[in-house]
Amino acid sequence: MKAVGIVVEYNPFHNGHLYHAASAKAQTESDLVIAVMSGNFLQRGEPALVDKWTRTEMALENGVDLVFELPYERATSNASSFASGAIQLLDAAGCSSYCFGSENGSIVPFTTTLSRIASVQTQYDELIRKYIQEGISYPKALNRAYSALIRSTANEQETVDLSLPNNILGFHYMEAAANIGSSMKPATLPRLGAGYHDDVKHGTPIASATGIRKEFFETESTEPIQQFVPNSVYNSLNNWIIERTSFGSWDVFYPLLRFQILRSGPEHLAAIADVTEGIENLLYKAARQAETFQQFMAIVKSKRYTWTRIQRMLTHIYTGFTYSHRASMPAPDHLRLLGMTRAGQSYLKEMKENMKLPVVSRLANFNSASADFSSSVSDLYAFGINPIHPSLGLDYRIPPIRKD
Amino acid sequence: MKAVGIVVEYNPFHNGHLYHAASAKAQTESDLVIAVMSGNFLQRGEPALVDKWTRTEMALENGVDLVFELPYERATSNASSFASGAIQLLDAAGCSSYCFGSENGSIVPFTTTLSRIASVQTQYDELIRKYIQEGISYPKALNRAYSALIRSTANEQETVDLSLPNNILGFHYMEAAANIGSSMKPATLPRLGAGYHDDVKHGTPIASATGIRKEFFETESTEPIQQFVPNSVYNSLNNWIIERTSFGSWDVFYPLLRFQILRSGPEHLAAIADVTEGIENLLYKAARQAETFQQFMAIVKSKRYTWTRIQRMLTHIYTGFTYSHRASMPAPDHLRLLGMTRAGQSYLKEMKENMKLPVVSRLANFNSASADFSSSVSDLYAFGINPIHPSLGLDYRIPPIRKD
Repeated sequence: MKAVGIVVEYNPFHNGHLYHAASAKAQTESDLVIAVMSGNFLQRGEPALVDKWTRTEMALENGVDLVFELPYERATSNASSFASGAIQLLDAAGCSSYCFGSENGSIVPFTTTLSRIASVQTQYDELIRKYIQEGISYPKALNRAYSALIRSTANEQETVDLSLPNNILGFHYMEAAANIGSSMKPATLPRLGAGYHDDVKHGTPIASATGIRKEFFETESTEPIQQFVPNSVYNSLNNWIIERTSFGSWDVFYPLLRFQILRSGPEHLAAIADVTEGIENLLYKAARQAETFQQFMAIVKSKRYTWTRIQRMLTHIYTGFTYSHRASMPAPDHLRLLGMTRAGQSYLKEMKENMKLPVVSRLANFNSASADFSSSVSDLYAFGINPIHPSLGLDYRIPPIRKD
Repeated sequence: MKAVGIVVEYNPFHNGHLYHAASAKAQTESDLVIAVMSGNFLQRGEPALVDKWTRTEMALENGVDLVFELPYERATSNASSFASGAIQLLDAAGCSSYCFGSENGSIVPFTTTLSRIASVQTQYDELIRKYIQEGISYPKALNRAYSALIRSTANEQETVDLSLPNNILGFHYMEAAANIGSSMKPATLPRLGAGYHDDVKHGTPIASATGIRKEFFETESTEPIQQFVPNSVYNSLNNWIIERTSFGSWDVFYPLLRFQILRSGPEHLAAIADVTEGIENLLYKAARQAETFQQFMAIVKSKRYTWTRIQRMLTHIYTGFTYSHRASMPAPDHLRLLGMTRAGQSYLKEMKENMKLPVVSRLANFNSASADFSSSVSDLYAFGINPIHPSLGLDYRIPPIRKD
């Protein structure tokens, strides 16, 4: 059986994702789709709307055959580390190809970009470092160096515009695959409809997850987003809110985050991953003053740090993820199986001996710093959703979800 | 002016306290009463019903002239350390005498007890150590050693029964005063009415604070305790519940405590003060399982640790108080003024030059590990009372309370 790998967050699953999974399978002529999916905290450094099992169900109902969890330390890290973790897992799972969304849906400019950068690697890295020292954020520094060294000397059509989020991830996937000498073939699909951060447009079936979440929280209702998501997802979101009473967001998680910042104090905050250069004092001050998450961010946000970068620090503070935790998890060491269709199950049986990492379907049978931390994160996420009656220990109690 | 010192928690202030303050003043022929009072967490290792400022008001309305805070690290420690902290502060504040409640109200048996123990100190300490190694709690071990070496060889009337909580504290006050060579004279008053842990008896004006709290939480109403507390206290409790919506208790603070235990994990718990000998694994397991504080304690409680001892660990986990924090606060280093009457104010003016420690009325003007920690504890207490809208920074905003 031939598998195509995709990297997803599904926050929430929407019609664009349905198209992506189906087209990836068709374009690569695969028998099944394997998704590596973030757990309960996401790459933008925020809690997922609904937990990883609920999002796994959404995936299995809508064209994905196997869902493996991207472990916490990679799911919440920068684009390069996120992408390399995901690619390592897809490669370990035996995928023949991987497929990502990009602005233009053409793979050649990515190949060209990679080789051009490789040819000026030293200069390129130095220029990025210089821009960061001047006080701008990493993504902006990368972009400026890229514009100066690559884009200025080439026909723009030949290379990729790395100022666009989808392109950056695609670029890092291909870089990561090259780094591990993976035999997986890259493929890309053009994104549909709305841009990454655009508001939703009513009367169309496609909107970005960001737009959907915004609509969702502004209207405090699932109804306006019904047109953008499959029916099963719509039902699933409605069931969640009935059972759990709130969706995951920093607005809802803020009291626990704030308690944690004040209990830790600036000294202990400095040990937390991604908390750097004295920002701990600002975080502490902001937590003392701000009654809401939006007020908190208004105090902390500056030109030096992107919103995402700050949110990642906050995620690590919330979960207690330190620099030494990170150091203890140098590479993904297992394939945590969250769910499978029948086809997925057959694939697992067939591939059993050829997987490059152990497939872990029961956490009780596997121990590693990475697996333990991701399961503890599930508990802390559950506290954010409902501090009085959190659903704990789910990683030990819920077997992989099966869909016939 | 001549001052008598008392050591109090006022959780809540009741008619027995009214009698205690007035009688202490009368018996020692003093001009004013100085109280050293615990802050927001108490010696039994639990959050106070209402915060330290509200309890200071209660004190000033009912016969106390000056209230100084017993800092967190002493207020939440064992009887010996609690007592020595309190005595050091009363001595530093220039008290001529100090007065405590005891079972019989006579000071001679305390003096006799102290000198008898001193005469067999080495044997006594060894015996206590031996009993603890056999697996019983410290208070029980002390009591057994005391019975074996002192009480068995003496007329019981000559010495003090150290199995009674009030007597133990009294004993430690006198021991602490002797250790620092204090010139303060000890005095004692017999306790009135109900025993320390007794249920309240209706139709009498006196009940223990423990009995009052029990009545309070069982009936979820202040009304049944009205007869046991001064009117000003009754009003104050009712105002608190209207403004803050809940009284402090582990039942109410449990979600934050539980979150903290799960976020820390067993390894980090071991750094917390009083967490010893592998109990961190049990605490972690209990937090995973128990939905309520009572369920939690049912799992953790054993013969080896008293309820109080466990609650003290939990207090330190809640506040993040580590062994290294404790080591950085070897002795009380300031007199934190919480409130004063006119007489108290005159006394401060008169004594200004003769206080042995700085009087701190604005925390912004004083920095020490101990002062900083106690103020951060106020914030964490406020989260327990109301996690969504905690009243933070009160230690910096509330000046000493004045009563004319």
